[in-house]
Amino acid sequence: MRVFNFSAGPAALPEEVLRQAADEMLDWHGSGMSVMEMSHRGPEFMSIHSDALLDLRELLAVPASHQILFLQGGGIGENAIVPLNLFGAKPRADFVITGSWSQKSQKEALKYGAAHIAASGQTEHGFTRSPSRAEWQLSDDPAYVHLCTNETINGVETFEIPDLGDIPLVADASSHILSRPMDIAKYGVLYGGAQKNIGMAGVTVVIVREDLLDRAMSICPSAFEWKTVAANNSMYNTPPTYAIYIAGLVFKWLKRQGGLAAIEARNIEKAKLLYDTIDASSFYINKVERPVRSRMNVPFFLADESRNEDFLAGAKARGLLQLKGHKSVGGMRASIYNAVPLEGVKALVEYMKEFEATHA
Amino acid sequence: MRVFNFSAGPAALPEEVLRQAADEMLDWHGSGMSVMEMSHRGPEFMSIHSDALLDLRELLAVPASHQILFLQGGGIGENAIVPLNLFGAKPRADFVITGSWSQKSQKEALKYGAAHIAASGQTEHGFTRSPSRAEWQLSDDPAYVHLCTNETINGVETFEIPDLGDIPLVADASSHILSRPMDIAKYGVLYGGAQKNIGMAGVTVVIVREDLLDRAMSICPSAFEWKTVAANNSMYNTPPTYAIYIAGLVFKWLKRQGGLAAIEARNIEKAKLLYDTIDASSFYINKVERPVRSRMNVPFFLADESRNEDFLAGAKARGLLQLKGHKSVGGMRASIYNAVPLEGVKALVEYMKEFEATHA
Repeated sequence: MRVFNFSAGPAALPEEVLRQAADEMLDWHGSGMSVMEMSHRGPEFMSIHSDALLDLRELLAVPASHQILFLQGGGIGENAIVPLNLFGAKPRADFVITGSWSQKSQKEALKYGAAHIAASGQTEHGFTRSPSRAEWQLSDDPAYVHLCTNETINGVETFEIPDLGDIPLVADASSHILSRPMDIAKYGVLYGGAQKNIGMAGVTVVIVREDLLDRAMSICPSAFEWKTVAANNSMYNTPPTYAIYIAGLVFKWLKRQGGLAAIEARNIEKAKLLYDTIDASSFYINKVERPVRSRMNVPFFLADESRNEDFLAGAKARGLLQLKGHKSVGGMRASIYNAVPLEGVKALVEYMKEFEATHA
Repeated sequence: MRVFNFSAGPAALPEEVLRQAADEMLDWHGSGMSVMEMSHRGPEFMSIHSDALLDLRELLAVPASHQILFLQGGGIGENAIVPLNLFGAKPRADFVITGSWSQKSQKEALKYGAAHIAASGQTEHGFTRSPSRAEWQLSDDPAYVHLCTNETINGVETFEIPDLGDIPLVADASSHILSRPMDIAKYGVLYGGAQKNIGMAGVTVVIVREDLLDRAMSICPSAFEWKTVAANNSMYNTPPTYAIYIAGLVFKWLKRQGGLAAIEARNIEKAKLLYDTIDASSFYINKVERPVRSRMNVPFFLADESRNEDFLAGAKARGLLQLKGHKSVGGMRASIYNAVPLEGVKALVEYMKEFEATHA
């Protein structure tokens, strides 16, 4: 029996994608090989790779000014890889802190230069805000401004992306990339680990404006130097071929769903159902400011936290899995990525109401 | 129809492993989830991860002095990650050059300090030797000596591993790890990308002696700092979970084959059959010195190279795939990793003899 999986990542994948991967495991399209067994330089994998790039470019409407790269190391890897690639001339950047992930990005950048905190969304209730552009106190001539556009742990999503003129905006979009259309032209760099909305853990998508490819520090490892990766079509080192294949299957699934505008409409509906349930009750609490509540990651707390274990056990018994909040904040978290169907959210809110009725 | 796949990597996997992965794709052991969908912190994946570590430790008889880490970035990533982790106190190392991969390792290390070439196996015929310890001209007090113990492109395998006393030996064993027992105690660090004998591309095994965990440069990215990775049981960042799962299935398959001593006996038989065929003919040529001929990667040339395309086309028609040599050296290369069965090598040598008989 398949469950409803609310994991924050690695996370639920579309069942159609998993079925196709299983069917093709021993013999991809009559090649006699599994995708895992193919040389990354052979015609079979090259076609998989090139389809994935084209489909992603189409889905996100990536402009010709930007290259799409496949790397390894995830978001945490990029915390170092970004300054290593952009601190060549100016080893300093500004950080807008909206939660745990942007805090980590700022701290790691200190290894390579200055990392100025331009604004913070921390309040007495934790990270519950995304400071507006008017609040950002930028330093003089930074190499870039970094923003985590969706904070997975704290459930804070930034929808208003300012125009910074000549200063490149770098966004960690790991946990909401592909959940809605985005105006890629606004970003110098936008990156994301695959294990939420793209596919399986092990591949990182980096979308980078071409004029930023020339700013690497001399100590940047070749395998992670965007210019080298771009010049080699993401094959400077052996790419994570199977992870790219799975991402490609997810891209085709997204196109069958109607693309990102259609996906966004479903995601709005799912998130509204869950937040409305939380807000209608004093039994469940979410303190994130409404305009920046994440559509992907919905953290909530039971007013009486002594009931946490009971809540999780009851959920598990109904096939509602991986609802425990991140250890740094506690409580619950429902991650409702693209692959979590509306039926899963309906089952969750029914359970929440029933649990409240029997325990309030 | 499954083919015989002689790819140098990503490469053939045991059919049993692929069948199991396909069977478990939608529901791993009644969990209701694919392994791809599991939180890396949940009990299901933790058990997969811990089994993989224990099985690998048993197969290679890794002593308690050494930790096993799962990283990302492959061998090319490690070319930077190794000096970043070992140049903290002494930014200088020595390199024994036995082919293209050790050349790349030496060149990348120059980004972080001095990279002295201690010996080279280059001859008028290319890389055909592995210089003996007596030929190594070590510098004064290097942080480590680097050796690629199996050169995938050139087909040079080093079997005699010297004792360097207090100087750590660092080995890139990507393309022959798990092909035979190795005395891990002789190595300070031994690493390998998974895509030859371990599993699918996207995970790198790093075996490191514990006293070497304290030597990182301050600029080492956290996600690739062995000490941080070790302290977090290879989960400082989200690990490539599915690649670890597939590696774990391969480890269990290797144990069912009788472990590395049994695998070595089969690999000796396979390599002997192929090299004997080459040596018995003047139609095919391999110039690597016999004691250091690789059991995993067998490059060979047709004396008349104008027949290369015919040779490859005829091979493909019989289901003998991916035999083209690396573009930097040309000719042919048969990679006969653990998962390539004796029957595959028999089919190849039959074809080679027949091709010779009809074209000589």
